[in-house]
Amino acid sequence: MSGCHRLKLLQSHLVSKFPVSDHDSSLAEYLSRSQEIDKTTVAEVYFGSFYPKIVELRNKMCSSPLFDHTEDVELSREPLRQKIIEQLGFLYTSNQLTYDIDMKDPAKKSEFLYCLGEYCQMTSTRFVVHITLYLDTIQNLGTQKHRNSIDRAYCLKDYGSFAMTELGHGSNVAGLETTATYDHKTREFIINSPRPTSAKWLIGAVGKTANMTSLFAKLIVDGVDKGVHAFVIPIRDYETHQPLPGVILGDCGKKIYLDGVDNGFLIFNDYRVPYDCLLDRLSQITTDGKFKSSIKNKEKRLGIMLGGLIRGRIAVVNGSEVCMRHSLTIALRFAAIKKQFSKQNGPEIPILDYQTQQYRLIPHLAKMFGIKSCGIFLMEEFKNVRSKTFDDPECNELAEYHSILSAMKNISSSFAVAATQECREATGGMGFQAYSRLNSHRNMSDVHTTWEGDNTVLIQQAGKFIFKQVQRAFKGIKITAPSLSYLTLDLDQVKSFKVDFSTEEELYNEKLLIELMEYRVNWLLHQSIAKLQENGPKFDDMFDAWNNTQVHYLQDLGKSYGECIIAKQLLKLVNGVLEKNQMTGAVIKKLFYLFVLERVEKNSGLYLENAFNGSQIRLVKDAEVNLCRELAKDSLHIIDAIAAPDKILGSAIGNADGQMYSNIIKAVEASKRVYDPPTWLPILKQVRNAIELK
Amino acid sequence: MSGCHRLKLLQSHLVSKFPVSDHDSSLAEYLSRSQEIDKTTVAEVYFGSFYPKIVELRNKMCSSPLFDHTEDVELSREPLRQKIIEQLGFLYTSNQLTYDIDMKDPAKKSEFLYCLGEYCQMTSTRFVVHITLYLDTIQNLGTQKHRNSIDRAYCLKDYGSFAMTELGHGSNVAGLETTATYDHKTREFIINSPRPTSAKWLIGAVGKTANMTSLFAKLIVDGVDKGVHAFVIPIRDYETHQPLPGVILGDCGKKIYLDGVDNGFLIFNDYRVPYDCLLDRLSQITTDGKFKSSIKNKEKRLGIMLGGLIRGRIAVVNGSEVCMRHSLTIALRFAAIKKQFSKQNGPEIPILDYQTQQYRLIPHLAKMFGIKSCGIFLMEEFKNVRSKTFDDPECNELAEYHSILSAMKNISSSFAVAATQECREATGGMGFQAYSRLNSHRNMSDVHTTWEGDNTVLIQQAGKFIFKQVQRAFKGIKITAPSLSYLTLDLDQVKSFKVDFSTEEELYNEKLLIELMEYRVNWLLHQSIAKLQENGPKFDDMFDAWNNTQVHYLQDLGKSYGECIIAKQLLKLVNGVLEKNQMTGAVIKKLFYLFVLERVEKNSGLYLENAFNGSQIRLVKDAEVNLCRELAKDSLHIIDAIAAPDKILGSAIGNADGQMYSNIIKAVEASKRVYDPPTWLPILKQVRNAIELK
Repeated sequence: MSGCHRLKLLQSHLVSKFPVSDHDSSLAEYLSRSQEIDKTTVAEVYFGSFYPKIVELRNKMCSSPLFDHTEDVELSREPLRQKIIEQLGFLYTSNQLTYDIDMKDPAKKSEFLYCLGEYCQMTSTRFVVHITLYLDTIQNLGTQKHRNSIDRAYCLKDYGSFAMTELGHGSNVAGLETTATYDHKTREFIINSPRPTSAKWLIGAVGKTANMTSLFAKLIVDGVDKGVHAFVIPIRDYETHQPLPGVILGDCGKKIYLDGVDNGFLIFNDYRVPYDCLLDRLSQITTDGKFKSSIKNKEKRLGIMLGGLIRGRIAVVNGSEVCMRHSLTIALRFAAIKKQFSKQNGPEIPILDYQTQQYRLIPHLAKMFGIKSCGIFLMEEFKNVRSKTFDDPECNELAEYHSILSAMKNISSSFAVAATQECREATGGMGFQAYSRLNSHRNMSDVHTTWEGDNTVLIQQAGKFIFKQVQRAFKGIKITAPSLSYLTLDLDQVKSFKVDFSTEEELYNEKLLIELMEYRVNWLLHQSIAKLQENGPKFDDMFDAWNNTQVHYLQDLGKSYGECIIAKQLLKLVNGVLEKNQMTGAVIKKLFYLFVLERVEKNSGLYLENAFNGSQIRLVKDAEVNLCRELAKDSLHIIDAIAAPDKILGSAIGNADGQMYSNIIKAVEASKRVYDPPTWLPILKQVRNAIELK
Repeated sequence: MSGCHRLKLLQSHLVSKFPVSDHDSSLAEYLSRSQEIDKTTVAEVYFGSFYPKIVELRNKMCSSPLFDHTEDVELSREPLRQKIIEQLGFLYTSNQLTYDIDMKDPAKKSEFLYCLGEYCQMTSTRFVVHITLYLDTIQNLGTQKHRNSIDRAYCLKDYGSFAMTELGHGSNVAGLETTATYDHKTREFIINSPRPTSAKWLIGAVGKTANMTSLFAKLIVDGVDKGVHAFVIPIRDYETHQPLPGVILGDCGKKIYLDGVDNGFLIFNDYRVPYDCLLDRLSQITTDGKFKSSIKNKEKRLGIMLGGLIRGRIAVVNGSEVCMRHSLTIALRFAAIKKQFSKQNGPEIPILDYQTQQYRLIPHLAKMFGIKSCGIFLMEEFKNVRSKTFDDPECNELAEYHSILSAMKNISSSFAVAATQECREATGGMGFQAYSRLNSHRNMSDVHTTWEGDNTVLIQQAGKFIFKQVQRAFKGIKITAPSLSYLTLDLDQVKSFKVDFSTEEELYNEKLLIELMEYRVNWLLHQSIAKLQENGPKFDDMFDAWNNTQVHYLQDLGKSYGECIIAKQLLKLVNGVLEKNQMTGAVIKKLFYLFVLERVEKNSGLYLENAFNGSQIRLVKDAEVNLCRELAKDSLHIIDAIAAPDKILGSAIGNADGQMYSNIIKAVEASKRVYDPPTWLPILKQVRNAIELK
């Protein structure tokens, strides 16, 4: 505890006008109701290879006065931005990355970002932009001559940004309006923003910080549009920090959240940059002024150029999990402490004992474990895929990885929006106070649905991938994608799937549950094929037919595919715990059962049409509710195993010590002008006197 | 347009660094695709009796410089609070209410609040607290001697608050800890907050404004707890505005939203108030110190004492509709203007033409019409119920009204949370900018789920009411509650319900659709009865059995009951339009079809178990998607009929003129420090120099 903070606490204790608080033992009592679990095992499996770094950086943040959410809550834009830069500098200086480190282990960037994000995802977002979006673009698309830019970025000499999105174009990257026209006389590019909608928009770090950017612009050579290409260009003078001549830039102003990140706009006005600014690994302009590219197909080329987004999307998956974990930490502890109603004048009951509250929170805990297991999986797979991609940018492994990541980016952020909103509502008025910090997690989950590829657009990528595989399969080419090994092309076989269970106990069977998840994908695949065949003749072309087979079909197919992967990864995770500790594993395994059964219940229509009967769906519902009840009592132990320390969590109502009531009183009494009369008392009196009392 | 605002616009135009914008005709083009509808008819039916006042107050607000969202967006707490009080004073002075007006027409308060809330629900919330929660409590529970307090409140001489919720108790009002101990010697009450958790918490207007409060406290007479009673008491000195001796009060500080409302806390320390502060219509203490009450049952008495919440809950229903309407206005216009992707190098396509975007938005439009129709219904019914309640506080009509209102408060706020979140996501990055104002509507919907009775607790009230009626019916007493006239006690009859349709067209049948909604209630009722019978012997007592039959059963039953009422009221509303204009009515009627079909689709498991087969559910899905497509093209006309004027909407991306891009640029360029270098440039340079470049 910093001296300053200790003084503040002491002071608040001395000046508090509230009655003296007794120690609140509610949380401890709730915890004592069930057996402890092996917390270290849970944490080690849950965090995987990131675990040692998490412990290290948690300690570092906890012992630095730079990290203090109670101070952040009232900070306005500019002081907040300053603080975030300081935090970043402080942590990065002792955890510096280099090109060589990244080449050796691509998990290192994500690991550092994950640790930053545990404290605050404004801080990690700031760095995602620089260390992955900006830098990965140069690493992926640049050549030896760009090595200096790479090294400068790793040393924070340059601060980078990622200028892709424009005011008029986001998802449709091919439609970007910014042009980079090659001038062979000077061997320069002339960059222009022809219209207001061409302005690069909401670009992280452009508002105030970045001196460099990875620019995406249409390359024009000899008057011919060669498609969108990436450039690395300076935007601010290194010494004066003023925009360079030909560059207009500014701050995009107030946002729903994330004001600590200086999203800005960027306009170019005949801005000339030398040839070497082109990231020319895939496309070059020869010294005699001819364009050439190793990837002929424009669309494919663009896809590869967006490779810099991969680690950004992984950051979304990881960030969604952090939002869920923090929110559930707060809401579960709240629910164990908060008591309401009693029977026959007995003691009041912790609200977590109510079925409704259990059902509101516990399924999200299962989903959170699912998302985390996929975060680990995505990181591991990235290691394989990246090395393959350097050699062959068009490899199948990348296509599959891209489809999985697209689905996962959608699902994780959607799950997080639902979970954080539920936690907000489940904590009532206290959760609506800023000191709960639930708002940060909800808003952060919200923006995760939008950036790094809009969710609705992305999930189509998964559907597209599945259909491409199926088309090949119909041609007799075996499906080799491991994530689709279970696809069944024979509709009769899918229809013949009947589930054989007549008791709740029979449902706790991992083979059966995985089959249920796979069945859903197969069912939706065949439904989608049929719908697409029906729509084909109805519409002008495949573009329209495809777009009109999204709702209830292809969108659901993409999601079911992603959720099936989650179920499998989650099973791997819980079995990992089981291997190390039987008793703890048995508790954690219930999260897997619950994850699948909740998905089945929420899609009961699909299962009832063919696979289930009504009694079976009622058994699923019973099992779901029972699992929620059983897990509720263990959930506080599970949370204690993986929760961030109180200082990092920074929630007045979510502390591990259970002193929720006295903590929120402290937070409120420490806030600005708490006991002051209104600054606008004269106005109040004026209103009072405006109407005469008859 | 105020002079100041005009100057700002002019200035921004002169100093803009952006390329010059062409006029954007996208929205006009979208509108021109379909026939105009009769907007006046739609508005008149939609707003019902409130319509003239809405037009009047919209004009008043539009012509006053006090109402300007572009200024509000950067205001900090205290200036915002000042502005809200000014706005309130300005509008109320020319729309003053009195006790007599309210007695004659109980819609007048809600009408004024609705109009205020169109501009900003911080402003209306401020006034809900005073004019309904505070004042209705006195009107309902006070006697002739309290008339002066009533008149003072209507003249804003007093500003009131509603001190019910405590830090430790919200939903369980019977568990409140604040005590009012009767002292017969002085015929006073001594008010105390024994523990920190007894502090009145998050009480609107207590932080800075209120000099009075309606206090809910346990009445202690002769050492005996007589249950929670209501008092009207002063809390601040009228002249100095300082807390009165024995009262401690302060501001609850920063919230997720609503910082313009000064929610505060209130602690009492042997605070003595005279006997007449007791609102003594139902309970009195005789001059010889004996407690008596006309309602013997404590629980019933408390229920009646909470009558002051009724108009607060109506305000939630109305407020939810406003949140949905503003958000959909913004998101639909955005979707007509924003273009993305094209086929074969054709022109880019407005995103509202995509099935996915239609399905994201249009069902919420149908739900919004449903909520509005129920707002009208609740207002009309309140007129009847209130007069009956004055004579007989225990009348059946009140019990039914309470159950409908409880369900509606839950459903409207849940619908609004979902709709506003979807609109936020559906507007991408621009929707994440504060200038979209989508955040206000989302946050406002969010708090609507919590206050005026937590949603999860409230929906149980509806289930309880239904079960009470059923219990009576099993005893042979006819169900007289109009909202339950269709209940079928015979399970076989429910099970025999089969739906006869085999084409999409057959689904557009209002009788069939209403039957589907009723069937769902009956089905869930019988499922709940069976589950309760199963749970009875499993649990210790009915308290536990009831609480463990909530998820999938009683909670769903309550919601299905509420949604069935919505469907019926919506049908009445759309038929009201049809009567006045066939062509327009035919368009609006699709909203009714969509409302029901979407509900059926989302509960497909329920229908598939007994009523439907798989082909039928696919027809429902087809119809749903087709209705979304057809309505999408008319949706902009519908929105134009009911949308608030641009100045009241205050969204840079939702203006009726369709100039979304130039408006957001204007908003950004007008924001603070847009073109300034960071105030923290030295820190940035320090971070740059922390690591050496090798």
